[in-house]
Amino acid sequence: LLRRAAIISTGSEILQGLYADTNARYLAEQLSVLGVEVVLSAAAPDHPGELRALLEHAAGRADLVVCSGGLGPTADDVNRDVFAAVWRVDLVRDERAVEMMRERFRVRGQEMPPANEVQALVPAGSTVLHNQWGTAPGFFLPPGAGGVGAPSSALLALPGPPKELIPMFDTLAKPLLCDRIDGATYVRTRTIHTFGRPESELGALTRDLFRRDPAVGFTILAKTYGVDFRVTARGGDRETVDALLDRFERETLERIGPACVYGFDDDTMASAVAALLISAGVSVTVAESCTGGLVTKLLTDIPGSSAYLRQAVVTYANESKMRLLGVRPETLRDHGAVSEACAREMAEGARRAADADYALAITGIAGPSGGTPAKPVGLVFVALASPAPTVCLERRLLGDRELIRLHAALTALDLLRQSLRAAQG
Amino acid sequence: LLRRAAIISTGSEILQGLYADTNARYLAEQLSVLGVEVVLSAAAPDHPGELRALLEHAAGRADLVVCSGGLGPTADDVNRDVFAAVWRVDLVRDERAVEMMRERFRVRGQEMPPANEVQALVPAGSTVLHNQWGTAPGFFLPPGAGGVGAPSSALLALPGPPKELIPMFDTLAKPLLCDRIDGATYVRTRTIHTFGRPESELGALTRDLFRRDPAVGFTILAKTYGVDFRVTARGGDRETVDALLDRFERETLERIGPACVYGFDDDTMASAVAALLISAGVSVTVAESCTGGLVTKLLTDIPGSSAYLRQAVVTYANESKMRLLGVRPETLRDHGAVSEACAREMAEGARRAADADYALAITGIAGPSGGTPAKPVGLVFVALASPAPTVCLERRLLGDRELIRLHAALTALDLLRQSLRAAQG
Repeated sequence: LLRRAAIISTGSEILQGLYADTNARYLAEQLSVLGVEVVLSAAAPDHPGELRALLEHAAGRADLVVCSGGLGPTADDVNRDVFAAVWRVDLVRDERAVEMMRERFRVRGQEMPPANEVQALVPAGSTVLHNQWGTAPGFFLPPGAGGVGAPSSALLALPGPPKELIPMFDTLAKPLLCDRIDGATYVRTRTIHTFGRPESELGALTRDLFRRDPAVGFTILAKTYGVDFRVTARGGDRETVDALLDRFERETLERIGPACVYGFDDDTMASAVAALLISAGVSVTVAESCTGGLVTKLLTDIPGSSAYLRQAVVTYANESKMRLLGVRPETLRDHGAVSEACAREMAEGARRAADADYALAITGIAGPSGGTPAKPVGLVFVALASPAPTVCLERRLLGDRELIRLHAALTALDLLRQSLRAAQG
Repeated sequence: LLRRAAIISTGSEILQGLYADTNARYLAEQLSVLGVEVVLSAAAPDHPGELRALLEHAAGRADLVVCSGGLGPTADDVNRDVFAAVWRVDLVRDERAVEMMRERFRVRGQEMPPANEVQALVPAGSTVLHNQWGTAPGFFLPPGAGGVGAPSSALLALPGPPKELIPMFDTLAKPLLCDRIDGATYVRTRTIHTFGRPESELGALTRDLFRRDPAVGFTILAKTYGVDFRVTARGGDRETVDALLDRFERETLERIGPACVYGFDDDTMASAVAALLISAGVSVTVAESCTGGLVTKLLTDIPGSSAYLRQAVVTYANESKMRLLGVRPETLRDHGAVSEACAREMAEGARRAADADYALAITGIAGPSGGTPAKPVGLVFVALASPAPTVCLERRLLGDRELIRLHAALTALDLLRQSLRAAQG
């Protein structure tokens, strides 16, 4: 049975940083969902010595090696020969693969170059995966099919282009693998998204959940802003696994409290806010200064956002703050544009101008210039006007312009989220 | 001297396919440009046994191991202990790192949780890379600094968040590495960014430049929108390499023409537009419907954007288009909000309302719903009002909501860019 997999990508261009290795990510996700633990993912250059060393290492750690790329017709496609050397088998020519390649050229009105014939060579004893999406066939060499002294691991080889690899894995390789994966294993992952509390604090509160149950992987991930918990559970059937996920979710929420949790799995801060706005049947408008449209962009990322957002404004200039939002000249003169007083007037003015239920306003200094000792780069005020009294948060955010803008935008959306949660009781 | 590098990323989430490993790609590109050959790039789970096996394999293949991630404060951050075991050194506490972490919490008005102190532990004999962008310090253990029986490879350890890893590599690690890399090889890369023409067309025009010079790598990369050329040249000194890059750039531009080239290297479409606005001393405003603030967000990503943008509006609702932009009710009634007539009136109204030199307006159907046979999802009108007669583009864009919004925003910015280029002669 296959329990542990290694994913090997080949291609010098990956090691020069020219390509994102999307195949490795796809295969990792698919194998994890099938219940096979991926213990290594690695890329090797188109160099027989390096590839051989890596395959031997991988075969020593995993009982399934999945290898992508290196099956083309040119001199830098070395994989076939290296597979044969590591698994100590001969290469044999698959006539059906030759025929399929010839046909592929023929329908394009071309004759197959002789160089392509080498692509039909596969290790003896393997199941050929015939490629309807490109030229090179893949193959699956079952566990223990190698020669004397070879690793006992299975080898799955797939061509490198994602347009070929993905359908070949889905339709041809997966059925072969499923026959050899413990059928009693069912794996699912749940993500819990939080905002506003540091990773170290959340980690300390949930320390006892890490490695508590061998059937559950429990990890904590700091993102640019916000921290995720990821719970992966394995079990014999869906009910068992879902019950495990539910239990870990409940215990996590008991320890960290529900307020900082804005969503699960594919939820984003904006989609969480959108769902609350829609279920409450209320509208929102936004007046942005330093975030320059980012909050509005995030709110309108969500399909159907016209249900809750009719208009928004970006008011960089003081004159625009006065004209579009009714901020008073005295406020700007006495407190400046980056001030609690200005943020409050922006929010209240925006709410009136748009005739909206809620209005968010953000003013601050995103940098890199424009800071002073009293008002440094990163100083941000976020105000929320609503039927309740206007509230305002002051934050001193760290990072570059992009990070400060993103953090300020998420802080604004989270302020709205907390207010909508409270209003819904 | 360091000649061969292995890149190791740690984190179970990479092996579950949850993340694209952008750090590995960045490090691979940087090391290649420095003239170090990357012979392995691999990811290991947060499991001491797997990580140790991989580090030992990597140290046997490379004389520099660069490891990212796993330096956090929680129980699944196992890297420090594994480094100490593989390189057979003790961990020592770096007091300056402790102080920097405390200060980081202090400026946010928080006390550092005791759990974070473990992040200040580094292998004895290493140079600490103090982290101004996050909490965990990195470190560089020079070649041969391990204990008896340890691998002789150097170890560079960096925190996992890209916002920390990238500036730490650039400003702290690179100088340490350059001292130990053969100075005779000089490598540089230049990127040429284009918009609006398909990869196949640009590739056909420049076919003769691929593989023409063995000292020059010439590749074409299609991004989500736009196509980049990447030219990497090697040589004995900077002058030779720069001359090669200049020649390939000139020849590329001769073949494809300059109009579709919006910038080089770190330039973005928005930074190119910002530079043109600033050098012309003109202002711009934006009226967005389907892009929901994205164009304004992109224009204000650029530091100093208040020089050319005073205000912008997002007008989703028809009523807002009339009230804030003066779009006529007859236009909305006869042509609808997604129409050339509406886009033109939005642009002209926005220009008047903001008293700006240029005004961009975008209206369209980003989907997934809201399309009709006559006005399908992806139909977008982009108008530019200026001292010259207003111009309007109609586009039928493909993809999901996010792609349509991004493509529409870049189309708008490129329309402004072409107009500014023409005005500057």
